Amino acid sequence: MSEYILKIDSSDEKGLIYNIADVIYRNDLNIEKNHEFVDLENRKFFFRAKILGDIDITLLKDELKNVLPSDANIYLGVRRAKNIILMATKESHCLGDILLKNYSNELFATVQAVISNHDYLKDLTKKFDIPYFFVSAENIDRADHERKIRDILEEFNPDLIVLAKYMRILSSDFVSRYRNSIINIHHSFLPAFIGANPYKQAHQRGVKIIGATAHFVTDNLDEGPIISQDVIHIDHEYGWRDMQKAGRNVEKAVLSNALDLALEDRIFIYGNKTVIF
Amino acid sequence: MSEYILKIDSSDEKGLIYNIADVIYRNDLNIEKNHEFVDLENRKFFFRAKILGDIDITLLKDELKNVLPSDANIYLGVRRAKNIILMATKESHCLGDILLKNYSNELFATVQAVISNHDYLKDLTKKFDIPYFFVSAENIDRADHERKIRDILEEFNPDLIVLAKYMRILSSDFVSRYRNSIINIHHSFLPAFIGANPYKQAHQRGVKIIGATAHFVTDNLDEGPIISQDVIHIDHEYGWRDMQKAGRNVEKAVLSNALDLALEDRIFIYGNKTVIF
Amino acid sequence: MSEYILKIDSSDEKGLIYNIADVIYRNDLNIEKNHEFVDLENRKFFFRAKILGDIDITLLKDELKNVLPSDANIYLGVRRAKNIILMATKESHCLGDILLKNYSNELFATVQAVISNHDYLKDLTKKFDIPYFFVSAENIDRADHERKIRDILEEFNPDLIVLAKYMRILSSDFVSRYRNSIINIHHSFLPAFIGANPYKQAHQRGVKIIGATAHFVTDNLDEGPIISQDVIHIDHEYGWRDMQKAGRNVEKAVLSNALDLALEDRIFIYGNKTVIF
Amino acid sequence: MSEYILKIDSSDEKGLIYNIADVIYRNDLNIEKNHEFVDLENRKFFFRAKILGDIDITLLKDELKNVLPSDANIYLGVRRAKNIILMATKESHCLGDILLKNYSNELFATVQAVISNHDYLKDLTKKFDIPYFFVSAENIDRADHERKIRDILEEFNPDLIVLAKYMRILSSDFVSRYRNSIINIHHSFLPAFIGANPYKQAHQRGVKIIGATAHFVTDNLDEGPIISQDVIHIDHEYGWRDMQKAGRNVEKAVLSNALDLALEDRIFIYGNKTVIF
Repeated sequence: MSEYILKIDSSDEKGLIYNIADVIYRNDLNIEKNHEFVDLENRKFFFRAKILGDIDITLLKDELKNVLPSDANIYLGVRRAKNIILMATKESHCLGDILLKNYSNELFATVQAVISNHDYLKDLTKKFDIPYFFVSAENIDRADHERKIRDILEEFNPDLIVLAKYMRILSSDFVSRYRNSIINIHHSFLPAFIGANPYKQAHQRGVKIIGATAHFVTDNLDEGPIISQDVIHIDHEYGWRDMQKAGRNVEKAVLSNALDLALEDRIFIYGNKTVIF
Repeated sequence: MSEYILKIDSSDEKGLIYNIADVIYRNDLNIEKNHEFVDLENRKFFFRAKILGDIDITLLKDELKNVLPSDANIYLGVRRAKNIILMATKESHCLGDILLKNYSNELFATVQAVISNHDYLKDLTKKFDIPYFFVSAENIDRADHERKIRDILEEFNPDLIVLAKYMRILSSDFVSRYRNSIINIHHSFLPAFIGANPYKQAHQRGVKIIGATAHFVTDNLDEGPIISQDVIHIDHEYGWRDMQKAGRNVEKAVLSNALDLALEDRIFIYGNKTVIF
Repeated sequence: MSEYILKIDSSDEKGLIYNIADVIYRNDLNIEKNHEFVDLENRKFFFRAKILGDIDITLLKDELKNVLPSDANIYLGVRRAKNIILMATKESHCLGDILLKNYSNELFATVQAVISNHDYLKDLTKKFDIPYFFVSAENIDRADHERKIRDILEEFNPDLIVLAKYMRILSSDFVSRYRNSIINIHHSFLPAFIGANPYKQAHQRGVKIIGATAHFVTDNLDEGPIISQDVIHIDHEYGWRDMQKAGRNVEKAVLSNALDLALEDRIFIYGNKTVIF
Repeated sequence: MSEYILKIDSSDEKGLIYNIADVIYRNDLNIEKNHEFVDLENRKFFFRAKILGDIDITLLKDELKNVLPSDANIYLGVRRAKNIILMATKESHCLGDILLKNYSNELFATVQAVISNHDYLKDLTKKFDIPYFFVSAENIDRADHERKIRDILEEFNPDLIVLAKYMRILSSDFVSRYRNSIINIHHSFLPAFIGANPYKQAHQRGVKIIGATAHFVTDNLDEGPIISQDVIHIDHEYGWRDMQKAGRNVEKAVLSNALDLALEDRIFIYGNKTVIF
């Protein structure tokens, strides 16, 4: 018996739960975990279940399609460790944290490679026997730089790309190729302090809390669907470098949390928001 | 069309969701909100739904009974404001907070009366035109004192009793009469600092965080099922009175949160724990 | 023996602590509590002490002036309960919380009066025997409206004005008359969601945390020096009204915290920031 | 010019600040950062300053001794990176986090070696070119085991020993040799869930928050002076293994925070408490 993840979103209508449960029941499958949510305002239905049993994926999806609204998105797949690619620039804390979890089998994933626009993190990555691709952005235009990165991505074909403090903005074209598959950690409590140097911005504004936000990457800088956020309290004794240092623990924890949610297929992207079970 | 709350807990078995959804579907009812949880370790199933429609409660419960395990507990009732009695001693912050919310229609409840073993809070209660019962515990044994309180409770027959800083321990006999219906706020992060003067205990132990816990009252002091908890950070500059003062905001917020959950029938009591949807 | 609060800020130079301690020591006074902070980047010095003894304020200030940089601001006064005026519009939770604390002697202050542009909160205010001034903004221009409010403020001459959910923007002219004396609670984690309807903005953006910010009021809307901030976690089940409801507990707690800091003269305003001891 | 750290604790008396500032001023030194605290209840005085200048440590300590109470403890030393030894058992998250920070120069310390009662973490430690000492506790009595560990410690003579999830209880004798120099991370919000398997205990108790506590190690298990604590919210869906997994991020962050405080000499141990500047 295998574990499967079933995710459905569709317009809401009467009897959806009944219809889904009916299909699962008739196929003699067991629901181990089950969450629904209806956005009443927008009449949108979300459903996720972990199912145990022997499933013919195509047949079951067809059965479900027959009893669901025509706009239903149905994802059904064996629960399995995803393949991920990490992208980073110079800071090691998020990258190192994920490499460490990967090494210690705390991550339900396989880290396939690290891609960076610098070579700073090569030594660290190599310690964990992970391939490191240094793709310099010097003396090369953006399109060419991204083409080189895409070549690597296409080779590995990852399920998920994690920007673990990758400090270059990705083009609209690049992002659209990996729609809903790129997770970024932004070192502020979004939508506060969008863009560069959020800790400097936060210091200048005199905030009493700093935070971090993990979100999917879309065309608009730091505007993508938010997955996870957290904050810590600070005071006037924190210069921006102290904020940066204290913030690293939050960044790591928030990215780690968001990554776990994505790796377990617990996230629905929905307009510019997320529904998370 | 009315709103109904349906709560079911039972041993877990295959097809429960299907069976419940089937009954609801055949009765042409609409599920507006729906949560389940299965405790896999103990094979226990929990279900709560908010249902819209015209319901014959007895008939629907019977239909559900027929398709559910024999140990199922089924609660089905119109969603309505509950009646609550507040009990307090001398401190006004939790009592005042609830009276204020009651006055401002922020509480899905009707505060029927306040019972206290002192008369300190009479003036405050009277400002809000709520009956105040001062039941002194002086020169009277515990059984007689509680009998007087029970007489008042029986007169009002509340859905819920809220101990808003009621500083006397209730007898086992009293508690068993209002099983699962008494909510207490304890001014510590349980199970730390059970019993008297938790802030003094916390100060003596030198903790860096203080907290509050809202829980159902059982025979064992501060050992009942926990509903809600929260904390705030403190430092060495806090004497125990500073902790007490800072803690009041947490106590109020935690009790208020727990009360809202209870008033919406979102809590299952389960052994010594809670499942909250 | 009385308690005094001494606050000094000045440009930083060598020996300031020595010079201040010398004056206090020679006057046979006792420092009970003492905090300093030097902003190294801007070479700014901040000092606050609680002093016990018999003090001739004018003489001691002169002595201090002689040993401090010429740009020093020296505040020296008996520690005393401040007089405060509350301004509010329709929402009762912050106002009620402060009235309750005032009534229960939990506030080191005297609430002199409530001013509102509506009459919604009159009944609540009257319960606590506090004068209520309803100054309608209907059929009257902003300048006239504010003149009426200023007349009341001049009559009471409060130490502090607390905007406890006062939902009108105050003019630059008004604000400048009460410089560093108006505290506002904004129902978001500033600088996120400046302006109107922050919960609607937060809901639309799909954030996973909501917060509140207490700050001094300056010319720029929601841009004044921040005193206190806090947040709570939310999820996709929260509509904006749920956020609003959950946010009220945070708003109350944050405003209450900021007010306590101001009432104890623990805040220095410094450019657009605060230093808080 | 060098940076020095000056720490003083003594019984409180009038003029201490003046006396200290006088000595520093007469020696033409510059105080960059300065904190004091007086425990009024116990008449205890605490002082810490970061001082810039050219200092003859012995002379300055003597000068200070002359003007301070006879029970004063005076620490004066150049601000420098401390040497630390890490002890761990099987779990890698805290150890890995510190090794990573050490590697990335985010730690104001030098990790000299890792000591473990197992060989699980050898491979990880070796990646970072840190000596690893596997001291098995199999077939050997406690005294012998600890003697072997002490031999290693004596060789390195570390400033600080960090128990990064070291799961054996240290003997009273061992602890007393490294008094105030051993920091432990306990995976609960102390004093809740002392002892073994705190996550199992927390799961059984049905708490809604889990936490971690970093503390100095004393004779009494998990009873030493607390340095840092933090918590995260959980719900009924968390089994104890989920708590354990979620708790790791908190454990890492809390230990990291406590370690930074110790490495900067910001902690006073005071009875069973800490004063932290």
